[in-house]
Amino acid sequence: MLRYFLLFSILFIGLINVRAMWLAQVGPKYPPTKGEVWPKPQVEVKEQTFYVFNPSQFKVKVLDQTCDILTNAIARYSYLLENKLGLKTHPTAPSPQPEGIHSNTSYRGHLKELEVTLTSPCEEYPHLDMDESYNLTVSSTTTLVSSSVWGVIRGLETFAQLFYVSDDHNDIRVNKTTISDFPRYKHRGLLLDTSRHFITVSNILKTLDAMAINKMNVFHWHIVDDQSFPYQSERFPELSERGAFDPSMVYTKDDIETVIEYARNRGIRVIPEFDVPGHTGSWGIAFTDILTECYENGKVIGFGPMDPTSNTTYKLLRDLFKEVQNVFPDKYFHVGGDEVELQCWKSNPKLIDYMKVHKLTASDLHALFMSRVIPLLANATVPVVWQEVYDEGVILSTDTLIQVWKYNWITEMINVLKTGHRVLFSSSWYLDALGSRWTDYYAADPRQMVYDVTSNKTLMAGIVGGEACMWGEMADDRNVINRVWPRASAVAERLWSYQDSSTRYRSSRAPSEAYNRIEEHACRMIRRGIDAQPPSGPGFCVV
Amino acid sequence: MLRYFLLFSILFIGLINVRAMWLAQVGPKYPPTKGEVWPKPQVEVKEQTFYVFNPSQFKVKVLDQTCDILTNAIARYSYLLENKLGLKTHPTAPSPQPEGIHSNTSYRGHLKELEVTLTSPCEEYPHLDMDESYNLTVSSTTTLVSSSVWGVIRGLETFAQLFYVSDDHNDIRVNKTTISDFPRYKHRGLLLDTSRHFITVSNILKTLDAMAINKMNVFHWHIVDDQSFPYQSERFPELSERGAFDPSMVYTKDDIETVIEYARNRGIRVIPEFDVPGHTGSWGIAFTDILTECYENGKVIGFGPMDPTSNTTYKLLRDLFKEVQNVFPDKYFHVGGDEVELQCWKSNPKLIDYMKVHKLTASDLHALFMSRVIPLLANATVPVVWQEVYDEGVILSTDTLIQVWKYNWITEMINVLKTGHRVLFSSSWYLDALGSRWTDYYAADPRQMVYDVTSNKTLMAGIVGGEACMWGEMADDRNVINRVWPRASAVAERLWSYQDSSTRYRSSRAPSEAYNRIEEHACRMIRRGIDAQPPSGPGFCVV
Repeated sequence: MLRYFLLFSILFIGLINVRAMWLAQVGPKYPPTKGEVWPKPQVEVKEQTFYVFNPSQFKVKVLDQTCDILTNAIARYSYLLENKLGLKTHPTAPSPQPEGIHSNTSYRGHLKELEVTLTSPCEEYPHLDMDESYNLTVSSTTTLVSSSVWGVIRGLETFAQLFYVSDDHNDIRVNKTTISDFPRYKHRGLLLDTSRHFITVSNILKTLDAMAINKMNVFHWHIVDDQSFPYQSERFPELSERGAFDPSMVYTKDDIETVIEYARNRGIRVIPEFDVPGHTGSWGIAFTDILTECYENGKVIGFGPMDPTSNTTYKLLRDLFKEVQNVFPDKYFHVGGDEVELQCWKSNPKLIDYMKVHKLTASDLHALFMSRVIPLLANATVPVVWQEVYDEGVILSTDTLIQVWKYNWITEMINVLKTGHRVLFSSSWYLDALGSRWTDYYAADPRQMVYDVTSNKTLMAGIVGGEACMWGEMADDRNVINRVWPRASAVAERLWSYQDSSTRYRSSRAPSEAYNRIEEHACRMIRRGIDAQPPSGPGFCVV
Repeated sequence: MLRYFLLFSILFIGLINVRAMWLAQVGPKYPPTKGEVWPKPQVEVKEQTFYVFNPSQFKVKVLDQTCDILTNAIARYSYLLENKLGLKTHPTAPSPQPEGIHSNTSYRGHLKELEVTLTSPCEEYPHLDMDESYNLTVSSTTTLVSSSVWGVIRGLETFAQLFYVSDDHNDIRVNKTTISDFPRYKHRGLLLDTSRHFITVSNILKTLDAMAINKMNVFHWHIVDDQSFPYQSERFPELSERGAFDPSMVYTKDDIETVIEYARNRGIRVIPEFDVPGHTGSWGIAFTDILTECYENGKVIGFGPMDPTSNTTYKLLRDLFKEVQNVFPDKYFHVGGDEVELQCWKSNPKLIDYMKVHKLTASDLHALFMSRVIPLLANATVPVVWQEVYDEGVILSTDTLIQVWKYNWITEMINVLKTGHRVLFSSSWYLDALGSRWTDYYAADPRQMVYDVTSNKTLMAGIVGGEACMWGEMADDRNVINRVWPRASAVAERLWSYQDSSTRYRSSRAPSEAYNRIEEHACRMIRRGIDAQPPSGPGFCVV
């Protein structure tokens, strides 16, 4: 029976793939779209009529409120538009007669200006509940309207993505379009690990540029870890002096302020992570006391997580966090809490005694540690923790954000949500899986997963968003940009856009239009200085 | 029973990994070596005594024969040495007292000069049987001796790899060393596919630089394929005019001559591949006649392989090959022959008739095609073909080189070798397997595989070498360099160096010293402008 089934399957697969198998695949695997937006807007009505774009006849005008963020954004996009967004026309082709374009029945004139209307005053920093919605109309009058500067920034990006080169390569066009857009999830993040390999500030800024192109709004800076400590502390300079890979591989206060300001101007929050008590090897080069000595056969064999019974640990964390929170303005702060090597704690005679005296397990010690560390954060700080902290039963305030990253994520999310906590989802979005393609990331929708099991809309609303995670073991300055992009774009669209129900859970298969659209998007990123890798196969990008 | 076995395995694995599991991994996963050569020389005696290197007090002197290739090589390495090979000393560290270095008992003075002795006249082009052996002695007199200019080039590269920065970062050193070196395999190649994505000439030249650093000696240029035809033909300009992705994405005759000359200066052969009769979709845009129309339900559904019954096909190939062979000086020429879609031939009414009349199968047609194409090559050309051509029973001259790339490669190699043909091995070395690590490539040794099955040394000698293959579906100008390097370095060392018998077949595990040595090597490539990716995990490279 099995044999017949297999035979049938092979025949069946043979039939549906017969064309693909036989025929020579000439040209790009997926021809790029022309002027399609990524991530896909919520509501978009596009007509076949078009306007021709000529930078010398075009300007951007601000009608209502303004502020430094808006002025900077207008300057950035004006510069892009002046440079035709990197789009290449062929001036050597037979020169288009003015009559030529006028005889095209879809031609509606040249694009004159973009009127930007911000109806409320700017906010100083982006935040979880910021309004990113906007309305954009490209027509005889072209307008972008939002009640928030963040919405204007998102709308400007959308506007920039509507332009395309005509089929005859003679001009740049934009179709008559109406867009009403807003994000599905509030937290659309990218984690970058700068400890396993140091990433230069210029590549971090480039990453922020790419995030803005993809409408992502949280840069989760996993700044230190076991391997190195590049954060340069004013209070504890020894930490990076001894814990950084090299004196050249540190982030100064100036560097960090540069990153935060660059991000703020693009509507991107910067959430630092100082992962404790595990993943702290590099801290221990300067401050051996704060780590636990691990024992084997009665002898110290090295260091493990922080010592949860030592006051020195908490004192250092209190003072360091105070300094860090003065640099990072975001209300959210990630204290890690993942992968704590309890075996080391269980091997240490002092901790064995401590656990015996206080009738605690090693898990309890982890809980104890986190419950002492979280209150060290400034008032009104919202802690973010990896799921282990929740799993080990630490009493957490309901506003704590739990980042789910392990297997069995649906059960985990439901459990976390049922206790009233909010979820940040990452399990399906690890970019360090080098063999994974964008389509693998594209299929996963955390709210849908929870809804499909629980049919509970209130519950699923507790998922505030997710993050693509670029762990740094195999990513450094040389390859980080093309490791992240365009694969993280799949996560960006999943978090911003409506998901076509027909493609849910169909891992490794996205809707057919998305294959063509991400080709244009990857080439768009390349034209704008982001060295994205090929999304899905053979093709090309003219720059 | 199985349960107990599993339990035992888990406990056992737990025991041997206990240290790695518990302890914080501070710093690089594999600290780089200092002044170790990749690929490993055959005989190397290194002492702990050292010489200090100061570019202003050093020069390279040629004692015997010379020629343009030698002069150019001396100029390249002199420039590198003048720039300290990119090695960074810390002049800000406490300045080293002259007494300081003199009080070091291992110090043997400053390195004065390198005497290069070439004992025979130069050859004009590298070739399969070229001599690449050399002897290098770093001592009070430092000498590099070879009877071949190719050996001198390999020796200069080795010399450049011996330098390292002292632990106190104060000076650049080179240990007293004697090396006697030669390659195990004659053909150590890299295939680059420039059809699925166009690769600019500057990245091809960079690839040749990297190959020279890794002592690889054949650039297999898979220049055209189904997707695009970037080769610009003088005789048939339509091929690239219509078949290239974009007018900017072609290789002119000048471009190709630049590549060949750059390669020649580095002792690298350039073997072009014009893959026929399959993988030729892009040819058909200009010359529809030469392709086979594929049918389904009595209707043409598209194009397949070349039409093996059409004289137009052979005439075009004859004239094109003639032109191509005037540009590429190498005696070897790759005519492809892989993955021919016989189903298309079997669907075409004209070919069905032809096969009926001549009592041929579709496989026979493939054989017929190859047997008519190979004689179109210039006299004395050695054809290279993919294994299918052998598998389908084409009568091939014994000098034909068969490139083995599919599964069951051991059986295939033995079969090919037994009929007196030579083997080029690639099955284990596909770089487009993105998840594969350098250690996966490192384990495979084609001669050893054949010897382990046959115990026949004569047979195994028929394996002339191998090639790492960078197929271009997911590699373009943005990522090709770090996709290839340092993973291809594993193949380079396997083909050049003696293999430690303890590590044979132990896929995904290399000898411990190699982990540290490839870290230095990857950083060395980065310092010399090749953006290699991290080899094995966390670490850093100061540039």
